[in-house]
Amino acid sequence: MGCPADDAKLASEVLLSADLRGVDSHGVARLSGYVRLWETSRINAAPNLRVVHETPSTAVVDGDAGLGLVVAPWAMKVAMDKAEKVGSGWVAVKNSNHFGIAGYHAMMALENDMIGISMTNASPLVAPTFSLERLLGTNPIAVAIPAYKQPPFVADFATTTAANGKLEILQRKNMETPLGWVQDKSGKESTDANELKSGGALLPLGGDRDHGSHKGYCLGAWVDIFSAVLSGANYGPWVPPFVSFLPMPANPVGEGIGHFFGAMRIDGFRPASEFKFHMDNWITTFKNAKAIPGESVQIPGDYERAESAKRMVEGIYLLPPVEKDLQELGFKMGIAF
Amino acid sequence: MGCPADDAKLASEVLLSADLRGVDSHGVARLSGYVRLWETSRINAAPNLRVVHETPSTAVVDGDAGLGLVVAPWAMKVAMDKAEKVGSGWVAVKNSNHFGIAGYHAMMALENDMIGISMTNASPLVAPTFSLERLLGTNPIAVAIPAYKQPPFVADFATTTAANGKLEILQRKNMETPLGWVQDKSGKESTDANELKSGGALLPLGGDRDHGSHKGYCLGAWVDIFSAVLSGANYGPWVPPFVSFLPMPANPVGEGIGHFFGAMRIDGFRPASEFKFHMDNWITTFKNAKAIPGESVQIPGDYERAESAKRMVEGIYLLPPVEKDLQELGFKMGIAF
Repeated sequence: MGCPADDAKLASEVLLSADLRGVDSHGVARLSGYVRLWETSRINAAPNLRVVHETPSTAVVDGDAGLGLVVAPWAMKVAMDKAEKVGSGWVAVKNSNHFGIAGYHAMMALENDMIGISMTNASPLVAPTFSLERLLGTNPIAVAIPAYKQPPFVADFATTTAANGKLEILQRKNMETPLGWVQDKSGKESTDANELKSGGALLPLGGDRDHGSHKGYCLGAWVDIFSAVLSGANYGPWVPPFVSFLPMPANPVGEGIGHFFGAMRIDGFRPASEFKFHMDNWITTFKNAKAIPGESVQIPGDYERAESAKRMVEGIYLLPPVEKDLQELGFKMGIAF
Repeated sequence: MGCPADDAKLASEVLLSADLRGVDSHGVARLSGYVRLWETSRINAAPNLRVVHETPSTAVVDGDAGLGLVVAPWAMKVAMDKAEKVGSGWVAVKNSNHFGIAGYHAMMALENDMIGISMTNASPLVAPTFSLERLLGTNPIAVAIPAYKQPPFVADFATTTAANGKLEILQRKNMETPLGWVQDKSGKESTDANELKSGGALLPLGGDRDHGSHKGYCLGAWVDIFSAVLSGANYGPWVPPFVSFLPMPANPVGEGIGHFFGAMRIDGFRPASEFKFHMDNWITTFKNAKAIPGESVQIPGDYERAESAKRMVEGIYLLPPVEKDLQELGFKMGIAF
């Protein structure tokens, strides 16, 4: 594709980190989707990434229509360099594409005793509270916080009741969704996992007004504004679709999709050793809390770590359609599978 | 009480801003609670507020056990001063008390063409997903973002399905809660608004695991760690109670309760005029979206602005018990009502 070797390696690493952590929807299953975006000239395989505006602690990065998988780590490094110098760094990105799992980028901060934050907007599938129109993406937020002897705290979640990947799993299994995940085209609650194909929408975290969907809407809006209105990317209904067969929205209000990254030095607040001691205490206190019989209180990141450990031993299982898709892609690109 | 005149004026303004914005639970109804905390020496009416650790873009503030209503605006100013100089400022606060509505502090940034962020932890009333123990407060987040001709975007919400104030309203009316707000002491879903009095707990935004309560738990945990583990305040089950008749938790892990504030200059990212033009477009796009018949898509802050406008004309209605409480307080302190 003309992608520099280092970029190709990094993009692979970001995709594989999703497969390893059990987020199958964001791993190699998406590879052919990225290639199709490149084929329709929506992805630039050799982008000229650059900071277009900055202060000591803030910046805007132009992703030059590059692979989000490459643009995002580059922008996160800009944030970390600023944090190294002035305590924190905050970088909004325009003109980018889908960046894989949010958690990968936030976790880059951990090895430097920093807290990492990562957000992105995405194509509109979500109806704000009371809306019949889809105006927001599943707009995830990731926050990675280092600990001492305990593993780090890594939250990484879509700001909807359920991520779109969860819906796709139910579609394949011909199963219904719980109430609160989707609405139909008239705004009524629905349990049909295929509702998005007939004018329905995903719902913000909370599901309906009585259960706090206005808060999930606030979160998704927050991510959209930080990622795109701050950076100069497309926001709301103008965010370009990930799939190449859907047309680009008319009259774009910015360039590409947007991300937002943050890095804060722990010792910008208190000595890192003190902080980590208390993070260990926080984590063990929550982990050891009395739980509902048969369950336990998890720390954000526990599930992904357990999957990761398991898959490092057992390997990563690819669904037959994903395997077939990769074989076809390899054939097309002249790569042995 | 020995509170400097300027501090008393500021504290009054923060409390009244809640009453004006329709957040009755956080207004003058709480005044006698603050006084009782002072009577039991848990609030220092004349604190020596100071920055105890800092970098160009980060700081920790020691609230010296002061009124949160005074400590929080002081710390937010430190964040804004840093943003003025290096693009952004991030301030964690320890040794503080209840700070009123989160939105007041975040909104301080607006007049300087900055984005404001405000968070606080609070005494433990919330059970993380699957927990039988109450380990988190309702830990609110506020984000204030300026626009041009449109009013600002102001999100201000507890990271639970419903704020504790909503529960108290149902208790007074002898009404049940929707499912997803509270659980009983055995972790079963409940509709009893009095559940917290018999070992139950508030639930994180999402309500249960199927509806994303692990995401609400992530949000509450994020607020707790930024507010208290970064600053050196008490976190999780150690956060001191607001009510003076409850004992302080044994073996504190920090000082007082914690807050976290952020300020970012818009022009640290792009020219403020450009940003505000697109914020207006964002707001009108969402406001004008096709809605469920009889409803409309609201912008975060719309409800509070409408209440504010109404109450500026009609006055603020005080419930009879609140009026009686204020009369008794005035009598005790020698102030005519």
